[in-house]
Amino acid sequence: MTRTIKLTLRYDGTAYGGFAPQPNAVTISALLREAIRRATGEVPRLAVAGRTDAGVHARGQVVSFSTASRIPADRFPHALNAHLPHDVVAVAAEEVPPAFHARYDAVSKVYSYTIDNSPFPDPLLRRYAWFVPQPLDLGAMRAAAALLVGRHDFAAFRSTGGAAKTSVRTLHRLEVAEVPGAPVVGRLLRIEAEADGFLYNMVRILAGTLVEVGLGRRSLDDVRAALATGDRTRAGRTAPPHGLCLEAVRYPE
Amino acid sequence: MTRTIKLTLRYDGTAYGGFAPQPNAVTISALLREAIRRATGEVPRLAVAGRTDAGVHARGQVVSFSTASRIPADRFPHALNAHLPHDVVAVAAEEVPPAFHARYDAVSKVYSYTIDNSPFPDPLLRRYAWFVPQPLDLGAMRAAAALLVGRHDFAAFRSTGGAAKTSVRTLHRLEVAEVPGAPVVGRLLRIEAEADGFLYNMVRILAGTLVEVGLGRRSLDDVRAALATGDRTRAGRTAPPHGLCLEAVRYPE
Repeated sequence: MTRTIKLTLRYDGTAYGGFAPQPNAVTISALLREAIRRATGEVPRLAVAGRTDAGVHARGQVVSFSTASRIPADRFPHALNAHLPHDVVAVAAEEVPPAFHARYDAVSKVYSYTIDNSPFPDPLLRRYAWFVPQPLDLGAMRAAAALLVGRHDFAAFRSTGGAAKTSVRTLHRLEVAEVPGAPVVGRLLRIEAEADGFLYNMVRILAGTLVEVGLGRRSLDDVRAALATGDRTRAGRTAPPHGLCLEAVRYPE
Repeated sequence: MTRTIKLTLRYDGTAYGGFAPQPNAVTISALLREAIRRATGEVPRLAVAGRTDAGVHARGQVVSFSTASRIPADRFPHALNAHLPHDVVAVAAEEVPPAFHARYDAVSKVYSYTIDNSPFPDPLLRRYAWFVPQPLDLGAMRAAAALLVGRHDFAAFRSTGGAAKTSVRTLHRLEVAEVPGAPVVGRLLRIEAEADGFLYNMVRILAGTLVEVGLGRRSLDDVRAALATGDRTRAGRTAPPHGLCLEAVRYPE
């Protein structure tokens, strides 16, 4: 009997060439496929909710695959973790209806982007936060974020290389918060973005744009113009990958 | 002219043999001494607020030393970071009165101890949190913490090897909190301890004791007995070093 398994994964992306298969890098999908092969004897076709890039992390990545193995669904994390490295961890698994697809069935995804806004980089965050030493105007960043929330054509906020047919997306939330429990020096900012889908590099370009607004290098009018024209050069730079983390993927109840 | 400099340091202790000089390990003090030598030409005698062990981290370690160099006090972080690895960062420096001593003048120290209380370890926290998969009774941990706060003989809460003459300390705070922004699976706990001074391994034994109480393996009466008898075997295990972080050192205003 074939079942479909929905698997939730966490990983530290530092050492890897992203999720999707690649010729010259160790990828999360290759590690996961091999772990499934060793646990079940099968080489599954994987569906993944978010194809994270090299260096990007995940706390709530979702993968689905079908299997004929008899491993109980809730034992899959144990079975797979025995064959996964310490920086890739299966944290939950459940059986879902046969037609379930981790990407197509997702109704929204939540990403975080972390910024170490201190005069000197915090060594404990060097793999997980973008170090931006200059002062950032949080109010301006939030005003820009408010312009971006909603259903828009985000053509200016994607890198070439994505395969999406339309660049219209609904950005449900784009929040900029100071993380409580402040360090002794500086502060930690966290951008949280939730959308029905993200274009290639979209969260990193949103983060780069908000930071440039926070630095005073880009205005709210620039953000409006980026949305209106779809011109990539009107949006900010692509923020580095290591600040990005796929936090959660939501599905219909 | 000789000046005394008070330097604040952050470090990821993962790769190092602790702060204090050791024959067969790279230590934070050796790195710092070498960075000062390269920046000033002098080999200083360092005073340090907290002699953190191998694997222990710091966000607010304080070191003092005297120097005849003409580097302006507030330029020391830049000057030293040029010669320090990425996981050891000077974040602040100021000139202080000549007699200032980072350890003797400290009125209190604040340590955090982080616990990844999830069914499976979070790979993003594997260097910074103790993974405890079993359910923890937060209420019981807080009740035990309340017993420990105050001026007590903490003889049961120290490892052999410390040089302290008395084991009486005042524990100002011992708080157990759930870190907000919960991950998708499990939860993150943070113990924060502030005292006028800590015995050797004291925070790690406090953390180990609170966790054993949270697991139901040790009772509040055990904690009372540990305090009353000074018997090390009545307190809990020494929690692993990587969950521990020296957050801040306080000095008289």
